[in-house]
Amino acid sequence: MNDLKQNLLQTAETVNQALERILPGETVHPERLHQAMRYSVFAGGKRLRPALCIAACEACGGTAAQAMDAACALELLHTYTLIHDDLPAMDDDTLRRGQPTCHIEFDEATAILAGDALLTLAFEVLAGVPHIGCQLALELAKASGSRGVIGGQAEDLAAEGQPADADLLEYIHRHKTAALIRTACVMGGLCAGANSQILESLAVYGENTGLAFQLIDDLLDESSTEAELGKNIGSDKEKDKMTWPAVHGVEASRERVHELTESACEAANNLPDGKTLNALASFMASRQF
Amino acid sequence: MNDLKQNLLQTAETVNQALERILPGETVHPERLHQAMRYSVFAGGKRLRPALCIAACEACGGTAAQAMDAACALELLHTYTLIHDDLPAMDDDTLRRGQPTCHIEFDEATAILAGDALLTLAFEVLAGVPHIGCQLALELAKASGSRGVIGGQAEDLAAEGQPADADLLEYIHRHKTAALIRTACVMGGLCAGANSQILESLAVYGENTGLAFQLIDDLLDESSTEAELGKNIGSDKEKDKMTWPAVHGVEASRERVHELTESACEAANNLPDGKTLNALASFMASRQF
Repeated sequence: MNDLKQNLLQTAETVNQALERILPGETVHPERLHQAMRYSVFAGGKRLRPALCIAACEACGGTAAQAMDAACALELLHTYTLIHDDLPAMDDDTLRRGQPTCHIEFDEATAILAGDALLTLAFEVLAGVPHIGCQLALELAKASGSRGVIGGQAEDLAAEGQPADADLLEYIHRHKTAALIRTACVMGGLCAGANSQILESLAVYGENTGLAFQLIDDLLDESSTEAELGKNIGSDKEKDKMTWPAVHGVEASRERVHELTESACEAANNLPDGKTLNALASFMASRQF
Repeated sequence: MNDLKQNLLQTAETVNQALERILPGETVHPERLHQAMRYSVFAGGKRLRPALCIAACEACGGTAAQAMDAACALELLHTYTLIHDDLPAMDDDTLRRGQPTCHIEFDEATAILAGDALLTLAFEVLAGVPHIGCQLALELAKASGSRGVIGGQAEDLAAEGQPADADLLEYIHRHKTAALIRTACVMGGLCAGANSQILESLAVYGENTGLAFQLIDDLLDESSTEAELGKNIGSDKEKDKMTWPAVHGVEASRERVHELTESACEAANNLPDGKTLNALASFMASRQF
C-alpha cells in the first residue's frame, strides 16, 4: 500500500510537469485568463484520472510516456468541469481543493472562459497525438458531452429537491462521474494499442471504479470535516442533492462500494498485467479524502 | 449578387440538414439540455462560417460534401461562443437573432452546459472525419482557445470602460472574431487537400474578411434598429465597449472595411477558383444585417 501511494505521488508529479509544459504561462497574453486556468489546474488535485489512464496503459504493456498526453487531456477536461460546476448558477461552491473556487479567486466571467479554454486545450492536446489522436478525442468527446458528463451534471442540477429516485441517481452517477473515469482507463488502453476485448475489460474496470468513487464521495460528504476534504461539506444535504446514502442508506452504500470494487478487480485480472489497477481499486475504496 | 444570395440560402439549408442529423433529438435524455442546444443552433443564424468553409473547399477543387463536417463543427463552436458571451456574467444580453438568449429562454445553468456540450460536440464531429480529423481539430482548437477566440472575449470584457486603445482593439477583433473566420477558410482548404501556399492565401482571405465583418458589426450596432439586427443594439455604447468607430471614427471605419475587402479579394484571386470567395467578401462588406 505504501509503494502504491509513493507510485501515485510520483505519477502526479510527472503529470504536473507535463501540464506545466502544456499550459500557457502566466505572462502569456491574456494573462488573467491564463492565471485562472493555471490556478485551477495546479490547485492540488490528486490526478486520479491521469493515474488511472497511465496505469491502464501500463496494464496493457504500454509506458507512462505513451499515455502522458491523454492523461493531461483528462485532467484539463476534469478541471474545466469542476470550474463550471462550482459557478453560482450551478452548485455555487466557494471552496475547492482547500482554496477559493475559480470564480471567487478571479471572477465569474473569467471562470467561465477559463473552463472553456481548458476544455478546448484538452482537445488540442489530443489532436496532436500521432496516429491515435482522433480515437482518443472521439472517446473523450463522447464521454464528456451531452450524453456523458455534461448530461449527468444537467440531471444532477434538475434532481435537486426532487423526491428520491434510484434510477435517476444511477443515471447521474454513471454519467457525471463514472463516464470520465471509465474513459480514462479506455484511453490508457488505446495509448498501448490494446485490442477491443482488453478495452472492454478496461471499460468495466473504470465503470465500477468510477461508481465506487462517487459513492465514497457521497459518504465522505456526510461524515468528514471541511478541513479533511478541502471543499464545502454537507453541501449535498444543504442543496437537497440526491445521494446514494440518502436514497439507499449508509450501510447499503458501503456494501455497494465493496461489490463494485470486487467487480473492478475481477476485470483488472483479465488484463495482461492488472496488478496495479487491482491495487488502485482497493486503495480508492478505502480513501478518507 | 442574387445568385450569390440564392447560393448562400441553399448552403444554409444544407448545413441545417446536416446539423439536424448531428445534434441529439429533443427527446433524447437529458431532454432540456438537448432542447437548449437545438434552440440556439436553430435560432436562424446566417451560417456564415460554414458557408466560408464550404466556399473555401470549393475554391480549392473540393466539394461541399467534403467540407460539411468541418462546416457543422464551426457552427456548433460559434453557437457555443454566442451562448456563453450572452450570459449575465459576460455581455448580459437578452436578445439574439431576434429571440430570447439561451439563458433567458431556459436558465443560466442550462445555458452554460448547452454551450459546453456544443463545444464538445464540435470536436466529436471533427474527430470522426477520416484522415484529416486531427488536422481540423488542431486548427479549430488553436483558433478558438485561450490564445484565440476565448482570449479575445476575455480582453473584450476587460476593455469595457477602459480608455480607447487602438492596439488592444486590434487584438480583440483579430482574436474574438477574425480567428474563427480565418480558420473556417483554412479548414475548408484542408478538406480539399490544399497545399500550404493555398492554405496561406485562405488564411489571409479569412483574416481580412473577418476583420471587415467585425467592423461592419460595430458600425451596424451604432446605426441600426433592434428589429433589423435581431439583437440588443446600441449595447456596445451602453457597456462602454471599445469599437472601431468609437476609436477611429465612422468614416475611417468605412474606409478600412473597403481596404480589408480589397485585400481579401486579392488573396481570393490567388486560389485555384476564388470567384465565389471574391464575391462573398464584397457581399459581406455591403451587408445591412
